Amino acid sequence: MNGRITAVALLAIAVGAGASAWAQMKPEDAIKYRQSAMFLVGQNFGPLAAMAQGKIPYDKDAAIKHAEIVAFVSKLPLRGFQPGTDMGGDTKAKPEIWENMDDFKSKLEKMQQETAKLAEVAQSGDFNALKAQVGETGKACKSCHDKYKNK
Amino acid sequence: MNGRITAVALLAIAVGAGASAWAQMKPEDAIKYRQSAMFLVGQNFGPLAAMAQGKIPYDKDAAIKHAEIVAFVSKLPLRGFQPGTDMGGDTKAKPEIWENMDDFKSKLEKMQQETAKLAEVAQSGDFNALKAQVGETGKACKSCHDKYKNK
Repeated sequence: MNGRITAVALLAIAVGAGASAWAQMKPEDAIKYRQSAMFLVGQNFGPLAAMAQGKIPYDKDAAIKHAEIVAFVSKLPLRGFQPGTDMGGDTKAKPEIWENMDDFKSKLEKMQQETAKLAEVAQSGDFNALKAQVGETGKACKSCHDKYKNK
Repeated sequence: MNGRITAVALLAIAVGAGASAWAQMKPEDAIKYRQSAMFLVGQNFGPLAAMAQGKIPYDKDAAIKHAEIVAFVSKLPLRGFQPGTDMGGDTKAKPEIWENMDDFKSKLEKMQQETAKLAEVAQSGDFNALKAQVGETGKACKSCHDKYKNK
């Protein structure tokens, strides 16, 4: 793990931590905020998954950039899950999120740990390790979506 | 400028650079990508502007987090301005962007420089410097919006 990635991981943790201290947003903005962050994560995870599956060629530099964005931006959605935003906009978030916020947060944190590791692995240039970590990250996404996201 | 912020600034530059090498997105995804990034930037710049204007109390830790997010995420929109995305979705981007891409990029880069500086200044805890840099950043946003964004 080089210094740059260590700094990224620490920064990402700093940015994500203490989300409850954020200023409240209007409910529709909070919903848009988490959806915007999730969309950016998805659009950067997609090419990594495609590389892992051999659908597009492995490109180390591109993989590093996508993984760094995934790692950073995956810290942002939590702020958007503020109280009272199970409605107030077009959301696929299930109300169970707010009934089980500790469990939801722990799933988000698991995902953030996996994306931080994804950024490290991308940096290493080890394609097999990247493939494995794409799988672990995808599992963390799915675990939360299965429980807390409407289809 | 401490080591952490230096790393953030360098990382942000690395993430933003070479955007032309990104895989193409579907036009509607590219439009949503840049809008998502701009929305996240706006939702994090807003509290900094509110602090600068005395509308909410200055909070050093919150200012650091918001400014770090602004600095990082401000590197992301460029990827979404890929060729052919002056239409294909609900966009306020003017077609002049693609006719003057070098000028547009230089305005985006100016904004990215100002947001990187914003993150440094937030870290310093100097409120007057932060106020001044919020102003400079806002000017960089406005300069590009005035020329390239429909109302």
